[in-house]
Amino acid sequence: MTSADHQQERLKIESWIVGFTDGEGCFSVSFIKNKTTKTGWQIFPEFVITQGSKSLPALEIVQNYFGCGKMFINQRKDNHRENLYRYCVRSLGDLEDKIIPFFRRNSLKTFKQNDFKIFSEIINLMLKREHLTKKGMRKIARSIEKMNTKKKSRFLESSETKRQLASTARR
Amino acid sequence: MTSADHQQERLKIESWIVGFTDGEGCFSVSFIKNKTTKTGWQIFPEFVITQGSKSLPALEIVQNYFGCGKMFINQRKDNHRENLYRYCVRSLGDLEDKIIPFFRRNSLKTFKQNDFKIFSEIINLMLKREHLTKKGMRKIARSIEKMNTKKKSRFLESSETKRQLASTARR
Repeated sequence: MTSADHQQERLKIESWIVGFTDGEGCFSVSFIKNKTTKTGWQIFPEFVITQGSKSLPALEIVQNYFGCGKMFINQRKDNHRENLYRYCVRSLGDLEDKIIPFFRRNSLKTFKQNDFKIFSEIINLMLKREHLTKKGMRKIARSIEKMNTKKKSRFLESSETKRQLASTARR
Repeated sequence: MTSADHQQERLKIESWIVGFTDGEGCFSVSFIKNKTTKTGWQIFPEFVITQGSKSLPALEIVQNYFGCGKMFINQRKDNHRENLYRYCVRSLGDLEDKIIPFFRRNSLKTFKQNDFKIFSEIINLMLKREHLTKKGMRKIARSIEKMNTKKKSRFLESSETKRQLASTARR
């Protein structure tokens, strides 16, 4: 293979990953209750692609390209359908160094681009360690509510946070 | 833009379409009851990609690239979520001339490749007009059962077809 061929192959894989992510990828940020942290909550960002076991090779292409992330299996014992595999990148370093620069260079074409932008803003806040304060957490929680999942934030909905927000508003 | 740039852009769009189809595309063949046909059934192949209305531009990229197919809207009046758009290619000619050659040149990387192979075999049988006979219909119905949807064939399950299969077996 010539260097031009290699470059073309790389371009094809990259564009395929963008399309596959537009279809099946997910940029998500969750709040998890965790008593060992100062705020009582932990923020958990991840980039995920899920596939049935028969399409595991497609997930492996993504994993090999990025050179990071782990494969998790969701075993399905309740019915006859195939197991599900989740390719997940959860490390803040890998998200910062590999996933975010990739999708900055290669824009998504669906509305997932909006999720990606919010996701990268949140990662940025986390790198500045703002997620370790209640104020930063609220900022992150409000950003998550603008993502396509549109779930009510468990963090903002918690009675403790509501009391705190009410008392901040009164000040 | 130089001709090399154009070629590179084209390569990127094509690989993105493959990835997006690996994620969200569907090759389906349905049997529909239709009293106006000789067999009482009509075979209905389609290539479909579905997206929420916010991602309509992504479907339009696919439609513009292929230069065929129609956009259908599934209005959702029952809840607050966005409408769904379905990009559908149903014409046998367009499937033969545009969709199938494209995915022959650009292989899918997920198990959808299996569905595509069966789909193109069925289109081939239809082009030979084999779907107009009960024998051809049974062959097509058995192929559909090997596709990933794994639904029981309404055609093979119909009482009339079962009687005919039983009488064929006795011969």
